[in-house]
Amino acid sequence: MRIHLLLTGNEIMSGDTVDTNSAYMAQQLALQGWEVEKKVTVADHLDQLVAEIQGCCNEADVLIINGGLGPTVDDLTAQAMAAACNQTLVYHDQALTHIDQWCKQRGFEPNEANLKQALLPEQAQIIPNRRGSAVGIQMQLNNCWMMATPGVPSEMRQMMDDSLIPFLCSQFESDRVEVRRLAVFGLGESGIQQAIREQIPDWPAEIDLGFRASMPLLEVKLTAKGDACAELDHWQQKVSALLGDSLIGRAPITMAEQCLRVAKQQNMKLASAESCTGGRIAAQLTAIPGSSESFLGAIVSYHNDIKSGLLGVSESLLENEGAVSEACALMMLKGLFQQTGADAGVAVTGIAGPGGGSPDKPVGTVWIAWGTSDDHQAASFRLPFDRNMFQEYCSALALDLLRRQLAGLDRMPRFLKRWSERQNQSKTAAAG
Amino acid sequence: MRIHLLLTGNEIMSGDTVDTNSAYMAQQLALQGWEVEKKVTVADHLDQLVAEIQGCCNEADVLIINGGLGPTVDDLTAQAMAAACNQTLVYHDQALTHIDQWCKQRGFEPNEANLKQALLPEQAQIIPNRRGSAVGIQMQLNNCWMMATPGVPSEMRQMMDDSLIPFLCSQFESDRVEVRRLAVFGLGESGIQQAIREQIPDWPAEIDLGFRASMPLLEVKLTAKGDACAELDHWQQKVSALLGDSLIGRAPITMAEQCLRVAKQQNMKLASAESCTGGRIAAQLTAIPGSSESFLGAIVSYHNDIKSGLLGVSESLLENEGAVSEACALMMLKGLFQQTGADAGVAVTGIAGPGGGSPDKPVGTVWIAWGTSDDHQAASFRLPFDRNMFQEYCSALALDLLRRQLAGLDRMPRFLKRWSERQNQSKTAAAG
Repeated sequence: MRIHLLLTGNEIMSGDTVDTNSAYMAQQLALQGWEVEKKVTVADHLDQLVAEIQGCCNEADVLIINGGLGPTVDDLTAQAMAAACNQTLVYHDQALTHIDQWCKQRGFEPNEANLKQALLPEQAQIIPNRRGSAVGIQMQLNNCWMMATPGVPSEMRQMMDDSLIPFLCSQFESDRVEVRRLAVFGLGESGIQQAIREQIPDWPAEIDLGFRASMPLLEVKLTAKGDACAELDHWQQKVSALLGDSLIGRAPITMAEQCLRVAKQQNMKLASAESCTGGRIAAQLTAIPGSSESFLGAIVSYHNDIKSGLLGVSESLLENEGAVSEACALMMLKGLFQQTGADAGVAVTGIAGPGGGSPDKPVGTVWIAWGTSDDHQAASFRLPFDRNMFQEYCSALALDLLRRQLAGLDRMPRFLKRWSERQNQSKTAAAG
Repeated sequence: MRIHLLLTGNEIMSGDTVDTNSAYMAQQLALQGWEVEKKVTVADHLDQLVAEIQGCCNEADVLIINGGLGPTVDDLTAQAMAAACNQTLVYHDQALTHIDQWCKQRGFEPNEANLKQALLPEQAQIIPNRRGSAVGIQMQLNNCWMMATPGVPSEMRQMMDDSLIPFLCSQFESDRVEVRRLAVFGLGESGIQQAIREQIPDWPAEIDLGFRASMPLLEVKLTAKGDACAELDHWQQKVSALLGDSLIGRAPITMAEQCLRVAKQQNMKLASAESCTGGRIAAQLTAIPGSSESFLGAIVSYHNDIKSGLLGVSESLLENEGAVSEACALMMLKGLFQQTGADAGVAVTGIAGPGGGSPDKPVGTVWIAWGTSDDHQAASFRLPFDRNMFQEYCSALALDLLRRQLAGLDRMPRFLKRWSERQNQSKTAAAG
């Protein structure tokens, strides 16, 4: 089965809008074992649309069109489909009824622009839209099924899920595809590939292994088709065992989400003391619905006055050791426990840059203290990232260290142990 | 000038990666007055790539190819270009030197896979890559200039800016285009369009007006070509005057950035007390380099114990008025000033959902207190968004209210005044 996508829209063509619709379409089709062969994007020009529709319908079995179903004059999809099929445009009763209801539910009478959305090729069939005024259009040209969907992402998604996929399954053979995505922190693509080659030498050809960077996490993707789906659990377990404590969970998942899960299991209340992450750890935790069960709050001590005033970091400590130091991180954590009564937490202080670095403590240096009120420690890292990624990575790293301790795993991921050793060695070498 | 883009990559075709490269390319081309006519995306299949290259080169004056220049076997762009032009692949000295240097700078000798990146069509010219190992490829087929660029976004961008755009400007007539983007908060597209129609009736046809949602902000985009560029300042000023205090600044800009600018001008130190926004306001402020000049820190009082323990909100207040109340927001702000010594700040408490709502205080209710230590106030809003957008919008709104007061503007945006009045009316009506 040959599938083409045709996307239309001046805003996509000009780059003002990044197209995310076609990625969703391709992923939903892939779950039935179907690949998109070609994707064409053009602006809202009638002649070009007609030519592309005719061209695609000569080659493909299925053409899914996206965009151009709106009420304005530059929405040309219905017109282009009619011209490509040599049909006239007529008002369709079913579409008129839908538009009438849609407008009345919103408290207004349909105007001429709204009604234009019911002006469709005479032999068009209508694809229902539960979320918007634009109905979808389905028709055949040559031996190709053409289906037009709205450009609004939520409307397109609903139409794909409820109408297009079921219809295509009724017309074409599908091959069930199952996908598992595992989120990993602290391991790289090449390292995982090598480990699988060495430790799972009987990896089956029927199960496809893929990777997707989702910084600061990495997604490992296992794809099985048809009969191989039955074995997916088995191989997922093997990969999970190999990933060990670097596995955060089944994607989509964030580090904050997994950290909250562990805290909830252990019945621990969390808090954060944040300097260089500036509240990002708290924001990531509170982005999760239900986080109030395990997260108390945070003290963002961006300025040193807050570190001393609220977290009890003495001015002499700040003067002698500096704000980016083991002593400061540990004191921030201690102050956090005192102020919030949390059972466990993290304290982060570092230099996000671009300014503020020194030869001794360059941009990218961070001290993280973590643990429970009676069992905690600190470690330092150098993270070679720009400001945004530094803040993002520090947040994930602090939460990773905390979830490790709370879950009773190795307190430091292997890669960090090696890294930390190397840095200490080079420090000793420099001092010597 | 007819420009086509050809994108290649299994990960783009499958939807695992969303293509953002073509948007950048189109925007950079648009600044020279050039539009992309057509964009084709295919997977890494040699025959299909060759056919698309030949097809595009028959129609277009310029074909920019993106992706497929990497070291692995599924990187087929050089091979496809050679086949399309009926040329053989040979090692290019200039590319070999580049790859050798690139590998040695990273401490390793080039292997076979690395060297494959120097195997290019015999008549290819090389486009330098300052950021990666893959050189770009330039050649002519029929009367079409073909240029292949790497799929890694940073490498593609550098190559577009440093090589492709200057080369195309030397070969084709360009028409200088200037774009101004204004970031607005609290006004909608249709309202702005209507205001311009009514208040600037002599709006010139040569200056194109566009809009882009960049939630919670809206971007108003003015585009001028050629001679009209000279007048762009004038019309930008007219639009700016019309947008009034809803104008946040020239995009790209965030609300946090503008709020920090105003605080710095006024020599004010800021802090935030956050319940439902959970640290997001602090995170947005500290995302800006140099924010330490004007931002002291935050108290994230997600749990009521933190509201009472750290911000001095009494337990009786929490019991009688609830955490989402005017009294609580004002007390949080007062406690924030006492604890941090900040000159100005915001306090936010609301119900982000999906749970936690009541008939009296449904999900989406928020109280915001803002101002300076001796001049502050609170207001409530109902924001009909999902959890993430609610937190995002509350953060932007709180910072907007604060920057208004600090800059001496109207304390409430007009749309909120109307909104607030309507809500109070309906409350009164319900109570009556």
